[in-house]
Amino acid sequence: MTSPSPSPTNEPSPSNGPSPTNDGPRPGLFSGMFARGGAAAEVSDVAWLAAMLDVEAALAGAQAAIGLVPAEVPAALAGACRPGLYDIAELGERAARTGNPVIPLVAALRERIEPGLRRFVHYGATSQDINDTAAALVSRRALTPILTDLSACADACARLASGHRGTVMAGRTVLQHAVPITFGLKAAGWLSALDRSRTGLAEVPLPVQYGGAAGTLSVLGERGHEVPPLLAARLGLAEPVLPWHTDRTPVARLACALGTAAGTLGKVANDVKLLAQTEVAEVAEPTGPGRGTSSAMPHKRNPVGSMSVLACVQRVPGLVASVLDGMVQEHERATGPWQAEWETLGELLRLTGSAASWLREVLEGLTVDPARMRANLGATRGLLMAEQVVVRLGGTPEARRLVDAACARATEEGAELREVLLADPAVSLTAAEIDAALDPAGALGSAATFVDRALAAHDNLTGAGG
Amino acid sequence: MTSPSPSPTNEPSPSNGPSPTNDGPRPGLFSGMFARGGAAAEVSDVAWLAAMLDVEAALAGAQAAIGLVPAEVPAALAGACRPGLYDIAELGERAARTGNPVIPLVAALRERIEPGLRRFVHYGATSQDINDTAAALVSRRALTPILTDLSACADACARLASGHRGTVMAGRTVLQHAVPITFGLKAAGWLSALDRSRTGLAEVPLPVQYGGAAGTLSVLGERGHEVPPLLAARLGLAEPVLPWHTDRTPVARLACALGTAAGTLGKVANDVKLLAQTEVAEVAEPTGPGRGTSSAMPHKRNPVGSMSVLACVQRVPGLVASVLDGMVQEHERATGPWQAEWETLGELLRLTGSAASWLREVLEGLTVDPARMRANLGATRGLLMAEQVVVRLGGTPEARRLVDAACARATEEGAELREVLLADPAVSLTAAEIDAALDPAGALGSAATFVDRALAAHDNLTGAGG
Amino acid sequence: MTSPSPSPTNEPSPSNGPSPTNDGPRPGLFSGMFARGGAAAEVSDVAWLAAMLDVEAALAGAQAAIGLVPAEVPAALAGACRPGLYDIAELGERAARTGNPVIPLVAALRERIEPGLRRFVHYGATSQDINDTAAALVSRRALTPILTDLSACADACARLASGHRGTVMAGRTVLQHAVPITFGLKAAGWLSALDRSRTGLAEVPLPVQYGGAAGTLSVLGERGHEVPPLLAARLGLAEPVLPWHTDRTPVARLACALGTAAGTLGKVANDVKLLAQTEVAEVAEPTGPGRGTSSAMPHKRNPVGSMSVLACVQRVPGLVASVLDGMVQEHERATGPWQAEWETLGELLRLTGSAASWLREVLEGLTVDPARMRANLGATRGLLMAEQVVVRLGGTPEARRLVDAACARATEEGAELREVLLADPAVSLTAAEIDAALDPAGALGSAATFVDRALAAHDNLTGAGG
Amino acid sequence: MTSPSPSPTNEPSPSNGPSPTNDGPRPGLFSGMFARGGAAAEVSDVAWLAAMLDVEAALAGAQAAIGLVPAEVPAALAGACRPGLYDIAELGERAARTGNPVIPLVAALRERIEPGLRRFVHYGATSQDINDTAAALVSRRALTPILTDLSACADACARLASGHRGTVMAGRTVLQHAVPITFGLKAAGWLSALDRSRTGLAEVPLPVQYGGAAGTLSVLGERGHEVPPLLAARLGLAEPVLPWHTDRTPVARLACALGTAAGTLGKVANDVKLLAQTEVAEVAEPTGPGRGTSSAMPHKRNPVGSMSVLACVQRVPGLVASVLDGMVQEHERATGPWQAEWETLGELLRLTGSAASWLREVLEGLTVDPARMRANLGATRGLLMAEQVVVRLGGTPEARRLVDAACARATEEGAELREVLLADPAVSLTAAEIDAALDPAGALGSAATFVDRALAAHDNLTGAGG
Repeated sequence: MTSPSPSPTNEPSPSNGPSPTNDGPRPGLFSGMFARGGAAAEVSDVAWLAAMLDVEAALAGAQAAIGLVPAEVPAALAGACRPGLYDIAELGERAARTGNPVIPLVAALRERIEPGLRRFVHYGATSQDINDTAAALVSRRALTPILTDLSACADACARLASGHRGTVMAGRTVLQHAVPITFGLKAAGWLSALDRSRTGLAEVPLPVQYGGAAGTLSVLGERGHEVPPLLAARLGLAEPVLPWHTDRTPVARLACALGTAAGTLGKVANDVKLLAQTEVAEVAEPTGPGRGTSSAMPHKRNPVGSMSVLACVQRVPGLVASVLDGMVQEHERATGPWQAEWETLGELLRLTGSAASWLREVLEGLTVDPARMRANLGATRGLLMAEQVVVRLGGTPEARRLVDAACARATEEGAELREVLLADPAVSLTAAEIDAALDPAGALGSAATFVDRALAAHDNLTGAGG
Repeated sequence: MTSPSPSPTNEPSPSNGPSPTNDGPRPGLFSGMFARGGAAAEVSDVAWLAAMLDVEAALAGAQAAIGLVPAEVPAALAGACRPGLYDIAELGERAARTGNPVIPLVAALRERIEPGLRRFVHYGATSQDINDTAAALVSRRALTPILTDLSACADACARLASGHRGTVMAGRTVLQHAVPITFGLKAAGWLSALDRSRTGLAEVPLPVQYGGAAGTLSVLGERGHEVPPLLAARLGLAEPVLPWHTDRTPVARLACALGTAAGTLGKVANDVKLLAQTEVAEVAEPTGPGRGTSSAMPHKRNPVGSMSVLACVQRVPGLVASVLDGMVQEHERATGPWQAEWETLGELLRLTGSAASWLREVLEGLTVDPARMRANLGATRGLLMAEQVVVRLGGTPEARRLVDAACARATEEGAELREVLLADPAVSLTAAEIDAALDPAGALGSAATFVDRALAAHDNLTGAGG
Repeated sequence: MTSPSPSPTNEPSPSNGPSPTNDGPRPGLFSGMFARGGAAAEVSDVAWLAAMLDVEAALAGAQAAIGLVPAEVPAALAGACRPGLYDIAELGERAARTGNPVIPLVAALRERIEPGLRRFVHYGATSQDINDTAAALVSRRALTPILTDLSACADACARLASGHRGTVMAGRTVLQHAVPITFGLKAAGWLSALDRSRTGLAEVPLPVQYGGAAGTLSVLGERGHEVPPLLAARLGLAEPVLPWHTDRTPVARLACALGTAAGTLGKVANDVKLLAQTEVAEVAEPTGPGRGTSSAMPHKRNPVGSMSVLACVQRVPGLVASVLDGMVQEHERATGPWQAEWETLGELLRLTGSAASWLREVLEGLTVDPARMRANLGATRGLLMAEQVVVRLGGTPEARRLVDAACARATEEGAELREVLLADPAVSLTAAEIDAALDPAGALGSAATFVDRALAAHDNLTGAGG
Repeated sequence: MTSPSPSPTNEPSPSNGPSPTNDGPRPGLFSGMFARGGAAAEVSDVAWLAAMLDVEAALAGAQAAIGLVPAEVPAALAGACRPGLYDIAELGERAARTGNPVIPLVAALRERIEPGLRRFVHYGATSQDINDTAAALVSRRALTPILTDLSACADACARLASGHRGTVMAGRTVLQHAVPITFGLKAAGWLSALDRSRTGLAEVPLPVQYGGAAGTLSVLGERGHEVPPLLAARLGLAEPVLPWHTDRTPVARLACALGTAAGTLGKVANDVKLLAQTEVAEVAEPTGPGRGTSSAMPHKRNPVGSMSVLACVQRVPGLVASVLDGMVQEHERATGPWQAEWETLGELLRLTGSAASWLREVLEGLTVDPARMRANLGATRGLLMAEQVVVRLGGTPEARRLVDAACARATEEGAELREVLLADPAVSLTAAEIDAALDPAGALGSAATFVDRALAAHDNLTGAGG
């Protein structure tokens, strides 16, 4: 699959936008959570309709350029390929008869063209050609805000990683305090995962589809194969090796990259949710009028951002599975699995986009409480520094046995590990050595180096690096 | 969980319907396939809003009945609980701040009530109480057309089973001809599966939710527990043992029953799709103006009904998995998985309902071609009757060896099995015996009995039996 | 589907157990987490083989009872239907050629029978008949320990609910402190969900399968339909209406009930995991030698039980989706989706069983720390009692405004809500009234009643009630 | 993530293989279908154990190379890192106590090392470091046979595409005849999808994991970050930016690439299955002794290969969803979702590998029947050539109306389209022109060009191109 030129000059202008009667999606009861950000509008019915019309127009343009249709067809289509001219509800109703909205759309489109040119509209194409290419276009347009929000999330993480390079906190494994880390290291981990997810998503090739009834383009004689590269260039999409009607790897790759990005967004939100717990309280989500309030509890400040990210992300893996499962398509066009992709793909884009938009808000306004982080480090009365005491004692099995016993005693007595160690004559460390061993800031290993590596990789990716 | 009385007299009337400004869902580009039938309207935003208002009204009614709120509250609410009074888009936007549409709805509702009574609106409730009970109401309303369409599918199968009790056709295993069956038996199998799926769906208990902020109903002192049974009776829903905020078994059971029903619908559609193949052509979907046409091929008559069933069904298992996965909810209210249920549940109802509506159309108008069925039985030149020849020859291993050899020869030579058997002196059967063995109609075993059993079970279920 | 008699007297004895060469599954590297409890052994290859042989034996017994096969067949089979006589690896290898282990098994079985009776082994059956009925048998045998462990989990919850009926703790919504509840109420919620899940699982009908090559039982003439009820009685399984080869609702219902049970187990484990966090520390998992230790951190005590439950449960929804998706099976036997059920069903039983066994250990040994629960209630310095102050002040909007302001001040100044209220002249409550309002134990609403209801429902279910 | 050098010289030799007591997986009842090919052995418990030991050895080697552990540690470990020395069942049982097999393995490993060096075994590592890196190693080893089988599938498709470049057959959309294609074009579509899937799988980076208890490598002071690149080079794995304990994008990408490959394998098998139907019979699977036989029907030849591919593939999307869903992991180590990956990843590799191995056998031995393909083209009595007649008549709406009418008449009368056209005076074509229009071989458009493009792309990929 060859990549398109980076900045296609013939990309249909979004100014061919919807008319007032087809005015995008109205917010629904639940869309505040699940349709936040720019992707939702790009997967609306109006956006699909606009994309289908853009494909028909670009197809005619490509064909006219090499003399396959009369030169006046593109101009004739230009006026007709405006989404505002068509009634989506009517198209939808007629689509039920044929299992495809393209068929009634082409009929309606032809009615707006002078009779002599009508046969050159949708020339040599099958409805799947238009639907698949429109899906690629819809996806690319929806990916733009998603990638922007993912970038903004990563940038916010980079700021947190840089700003909290030395902010000590408890590392937590299996939800128990483990050893100290820095909040910068945690944010660097988020950053690296977000960068990888964004890169994976940006690299998914979105190819045009044009094969006619069953992939031979027989209506165009032997010249059909000349069209896909031209169509790809006009639409800023990739060019496929051959028509891929029932080879759904392009859709699967997109779904998978969205699924991976969604999982990453969920991971970060999950950490924020856990850090914002009443008993932990190390971070807080941004506030605003009415944000995070409860209908029953006046004192609550709920982490609605993380909650919304997690609610969106929860729904994604099942959608990816549906796309993967639907790859098993029959012969030259499938009976169900292909059609099942349309709304599913829209939801994947909408939900991943909504999650990215929510996480951006959370990360850009995140309140971090370094004092609380340091205070929480004391929750185990020094136990999470036990490993460092073992190291100071030489790291031998005997050292470990000593420290284990001290930990057990501290736990039993509810005492500070420091006091237990000081009182134990077998522990051959001075008070200063014990204090040094128990100082979290002295046990951060390569944390700062790892933060720097993640920041450098991010800079490298965004072109901000030296 | 106790069942509600079968015909609750206090069920809020659907005449409290949406006003023109909240006029249900407009058909979208893809809704012809994915939102057919009555369920789609019952899961629309307007339907959700209406259900939420019905719950608030019923709650006040229940509370007034036992003196927990002033007697005039229900009347005051009656006028305000009309969906047409509220702007869904505005509620949706404000919902984003709190992660819940109920909070802004309650605020808007209170504004329409005289100040002195406002505190008794949503009394003692948390937003999840309203949302969960509304979800139960939405589900019950959406299930009505789904169950009706499933019944109609089953009735159509019963007619096919009865009418084709003696219509011989090839039984097919692993997509190869196996032994003869009847089309009646095939339809009886569909019938039995549809009946079981419908029963499973009809039996799912849909309980009210009312527990207040964290399940104690503390605002109502010690009388809170008196409310749920009254609320259940008023709404025609089931009464739970205790508030079930993070016990999602009720939602999981509904999702699973929808998933099972969808799988059954898909199984039937898949058989229709395969029988309608050009090379098989034993059944055909109903025709109509423009139905099943292709944009590129004038001669095509596509099985759009089966295709639509399969497209809807393809999307269901991932949604069920999302609900099951989301059962792992935290403490007294979850941070994401609960919220993720709302749209998912709506889609499960819409898609299963659409599949049921499509399959009903397919089955009620199905054209069956018994002549083609009988002709196709000859496709293996008698080979699929081989087992019967073995039986006639005594069923011994020697008999099987003889018949295997004859089959091999018939395959090799492209000959009819009859001719090969007649020509083989080792086959100790007369021509009449061979003909009898090779007659599909003589090898139907218990097919008719099984058809009768399925019909009797169906009659029993629908009350039509004697 | 009619239910079998509760105690089938002809149930094949498990004493026909595996010989030393087929000695059950050896624990694997990961089976400590994922194959705990009794279900794993019941889904092993040996268990499947034993079940297949039990079905062949029961089939011959049923057929001999009504004279369809010679009376000496059952006795001849009795000696041959011992799993220890067969080499699983060899059967598995030969199964690859036919796509089914039953075919080579029947061949091997026949070799052990005197030649004259061989044709009456597997009489009239197709391999799917044996495989499906064996799957029902395997499932019933695996469900026994699963139901036992679920019962034990519920009993443990009942003890916790009863013993902690008055143990006050923070109710937590969206991971924030909400209002007080009791630990008894939390355990009662677990109890109710576990009881419902167990009941759902116990009620799944597991029918025999016997339909012959394509559902007609043609080899048996017109008497085939007499066999399924006899076979069902002998095996203690349910009797189907008709052969259900490609009606997979029985398998789907089982998978769904397992999925629902797994989700419930995960919900409880998730609460335990969260309560056991270092910063919360309200419960602790049972300890034991080496249990919950870390390779890198001597002080750690990890919640390995909850972790293992959650790890098992994580894998279940995808398996359920696979079963539901696989319901779309072709004609009289499917090409792939049926076969895909075998290992999937085993994993569903194994993982749900393992989760139930783990949770039982966790709940039966759970350490609860009421003092820590009460201490944590103070984490918000009284804010989570704010609602009660509103109630005491009359519940008016003005009261709410006052309390909101006091909460805001307490938050800003890090002060106790009590002090702020006392200092506010607009708050018309005495110190005693304020203290009463701020006492969690006075704000438990119907918690105790709900605990009692859950306990009564549990007693009713287990027959322990009066 | 940087790529490793292509041929790492320090890759642990597989000659450190399992001893007789740990002798790989024995074939199970169902493993003929689900564990075919080379991947199954590479994901066995022995293979995991070997990989874990390889990682411990490589870690010590890397650390000794830069002086972090004594120079004699690697040699001491060399003798102990042999899988045959360890009892998997015992490790598995002890793993249950800690939730991890690495902890007991490290204990057992240390017992085999002289006391003074024991503390340098597993130095600075946490169990997840070893488990994750072993998972990467297991994956790479299992991918080798999978990629080989995928290549062989693609090569077989290339031969079919090339050899049947001119073999005319019906193109089928929605399971109806559409227009003619070539079998070469169909095979070229398979080829292109297989090549893309294989490339996607080969490109997945498999990074080492080494971060210590919580990602800081604090035990190694500030030098910990020097280890990962050395470890990566020794094991032939990729080097991560920083420890990725709860950033599961590497696992998600692998799961997704396996899911996409599985979907592609399923698509091809589905086409074979449909083409091999009794009524279509255009291809047949390879035969062999006992292959594809039925226990009930002597004449059957079942497509066990396609069936097995489809059975494997059916199970994959749910597993991918489980991995994606499990990406939401807590803090520095997860409580469940991480552990859930281990067996899931093994199954993904095993099932995708088994499907690839099965499809390879099917494609390499596929029998193609060009005569039957051409005969089937006549099934619609010329109707599928209708579009070409429209083209010959000028492609105008009037032409289309004429041809639609002729098609309708042919359908109604069961007549050949040729006769109807000849008899229609409005059709201004000579008999020769009609024959030319109705000749499938004259309507293949760009089919041959597309075949050539797919072959060239394949040659380019495999280095076979000029």
